[in-house]
Amino acid sequence: MRDADITVRVSATADPAAVRSARLGLLLRSLRDGGPRSRGRLAEETGLTRSVATGLVDELAALGLVSCEDAGRRGAGRPGVQVRLVGGAVCGVGAEINVDHLAVIAVDLSGSVIAEARRGIDGRSLPPESVLDEVADLVDDALAEARTAGATVTGITVGVAGLVDASTGLVTLAPNLGWRDIDVAAEVRRRLAVTAGSVGPVPPVRVANEATLAATAELEPGDADRADMVVLYGEVGLGGAVVSAGRVIRGRHGWAGEIGHLQVDPRGRLCGCGRTGCWETVVGLRALLDAATDPDDPVRDPALTLEERLATLADRARLADGRTLAALDEVGAWLGAGAAFLVNTLNPGTVVLSGYFAVLGEWLLPALETRLAADVLAPHAGGTKVAISAFGPTAAVRGGALVSLEPLLSDPTALAELHGGTR
Amino acid sequence: MRDADITVRVSATADPAAVRSARLGLLLRSLRDGGPRSRGRLAEETGLTRSVATGLVDELAALGLVSCEDAGRRGAGRPGVQVRLVGGAVCGVGAEINVDHLAVIAVDLSGSVIAEARRGIDGRSLPPESVLDEVADLVDDALAEARTAGATVTGITVGVAGLVDASTGLVTLAPNLGWRDIDVAAEVRRRLAVTAGSVGPVPPVRVANEATLAATAELEPGDADRADMVVLYGEVGLGGAVVSAGRVIRGRHGWAGEIGHLQVDPRGRLCGCGRTGCWETVVGLRALLDAATDPDDPVRDPALTLEERLATLADRARLADGRTLAALDEVGAWLGAGAAFLVNTLNPGTVVLSGYFAVLGEWLLPALETRLAADVLAPHAGGTKVAISAFGPTAAVRGGALVSLEPLLSDPTALAELHGGTR
Repeated sequence: MRDADITVRVSATADPAAVRSARLGLLLRSLRDGGPRSRGRLAEETGLTRSVATGLVDELAALGLVSCEDAGRRGAGRPGVQVRLVGGAVCGVGAEINVDHLAVIAVDLSGSVIAEARRGIDGRSLPPESVLDEVADLVDDALAEARTAGATVTGITVGVAGLVDASTGLVTLAPNLGWRDIDVAAEVRRRLAVTAGSVGPVPPVRVANEATLAATAELEPGDADRADMVVLYGEVGLGGAVVSAGRVIRGRHGWAGEIGHLQVDPRGRLCGCGRTGCWETVVGLRALLDAATDPDDPVRDPALTLEERLATLADRARLADGRTLAALDEVGAWLGAGAAFLVNTLNPGTVVLSGYFAVLGEWLLPALETRLAADVLAPHAGGTKVAISAFGPTAAVRGGALVSLEPLLSDPTALAELHGGTR
Repeated sequence: MRDADITVRVSATADPAAVRSARLGLLLRSLRDGGPRSRGRLAEETGLTRSVATGLVDELAALGLVSCEDAGRRGAGRPGVQVRLVGGAVCGVGAEINVDHLAVIAVDLSGSVIAEARRGIDGRSLPPESVLDEVADLVDDALAEARTAGATVTGITVGVAGLVDASTGLVTLAPNLGWRDIDVAAEVRRRLAVTAGSVGPVPPVRVANEATLAATAELEPGDADRADMVVLYGEVGLGGAVVSAGRVIRGRHGWAGEIGHLQVDPRGRLCGCGRTGCWETVVGLRALLDAATDPDDPVRDPALTLEERLATLADRARLADGRTLAALDEVGAWLGAGAAFLVNTLNPGTVVLSGYFAVLGEWLLPALETRLAADVLAPHAGGTKVAISAFGPTAAVRGGALVSLEPLLSDPTALAELHGGTR
């Protein structure tokens, strides 16, 4: 019913150029998600006439985004021209600024990773300028790798563990980093213009909340259990996002996702936000490290990457170290307590454990699921599943890369502008 | 972009009867929301050709849902045939079963109330059978009034303060009523068949969570601040709903809305759900009455309707009774504490105080807004507004009536089937 309503509305208002761009994007998405197909089948599946589809495919081929090959005639089942995504022609770059680590990734249109790097930092002692220097450095390397691979970079999206003003792009507050009102996008852009400007224009740089980006990476179109989901993104603190009807809820003014500041323990620890006993003070990586290790434990060395640190903790859990297991159990129970409220309120298909939670998920799950079963009113915890992210701590950078590819998928003709440079 | 995508998809799949029904519904909604218009303007605004619109308008007129009158020719600006909704031709019925009151309303297509009644009960001492007898009695009266008014009843939706199994319609758990696994829809239908069966078929009876229905009533199409909102529905306990992109989130399995069971006070009062210190134990009407009144206070008389009880409390607040004001202040602060988490997570355009909160809103707001400003990380409480519902305790029954009209708005031809009876 609703679709038919929309048809009526659109046919009265759509302008031809917008329709063409949308159709080009539709074909591109269809090829990305469904694999190579004959031109005829592609037309059929996207509801376009064969001649319209042929024209659009030619246009995508001219942009270098698809290849066509005549599969030859084989009697009754002749497949005609096969169309295939040229996934490596373009890529999006995602970067992440977190308290204890920086990361970058370049993902091409087919989802392949063409560059990836991370670096341990001590974000609380370093001045923002130095952190921004380091992240720009990582991004610059990724741009060089993309150039070497022959991929045009459609954009760079930097995820930050903090509040991002959707209207200005300013990082208003990043409590765990101690940052206020920093124009991260402009700062990164300026640094890239110096280091990379000589080889072509700098791709568009945007900034976003890292947990929102992580949720984007966790979307799985077509999976009903993920169309409505809650993503819990564990880092030093706790980020998160709610997905409804397949879309990440960004909120009326773009501030959604500050999930970590539910007060769960009124007499608990001081939080980076200045309040006491916030949810992230009992489930963030800092809380886990405090419970599982002594202050001089080598796993706390700021020079370690997040992956190295988590691998050490996982090894200890695997060796059944009592203190590590008890800490993970406690974090799991607290995760379940907060998640139960979200499940009672939203009844999502899935709660996804992302970020550091994913790496240590197998030891967090038992206590989490026990608490969820106890605290959710609906039978069988409302039928909500708990899933462990396949991406873990790389979800945010992956989401950043995906978001950076979005403009191209909405309007593939935008690529012509980006072709001005070599990236 | 997205609209254009959908156009392509629909034109390949929609069948003519579905398109016709959707268009009839589109015209009906357009007339309801935008008022009477000339047939030409109606066609233009809905993107239909004039001849298609004329045919559809004739069909709606034959169903008795619109009237057409020739406004005569007046030269250049001749308005042609004016089309007007016949709002009173059909109505939806909403009913509510709550712990301390029952209510019913019949609302016609233009939004006018054509029947309304409420009754104070003591739902905790009465057996479910008696409560169901009483609610069926109220509904039966409303059906009779609708019949007298000449309106066909399109459906009856009963809201219950509890978990409703979306697949079976069973009320699985209503903690404050002490109900488990009661087939409310079937029970009401059976009672109506006895009392009302002789005058025609009983309209379809459905059951839903009352706070979900209340949120439906609070929707205001076209108001961006309400397209993403959180509705807090105060009754004996606390119900609620999250609205995203103009739709109430029902959840993967339909269990969403159990907002009242966030544990806010681990050493607090025992909740109807069996846990301790749930949010509703500090903000529900029971908590307010306990804080503001003695056990033998006449305001607690179960024979009082909810409206009478709230009017007394409002009078005391207006007269600056210290105990009443302190209790309202405390409830307001607790409301703000829980709402802050939802605002941090979802950044809605509006938090709507509905149910009993609306009647006492002016005394709840100051403490609520103070707490919201303190606990929301984004500047200016994330730009989220707090609004007082215009419907208050009638929001759930109104929502039930609106939901009962939905099938007609999706497919006005369904009216022909309902015309079998006199209702």
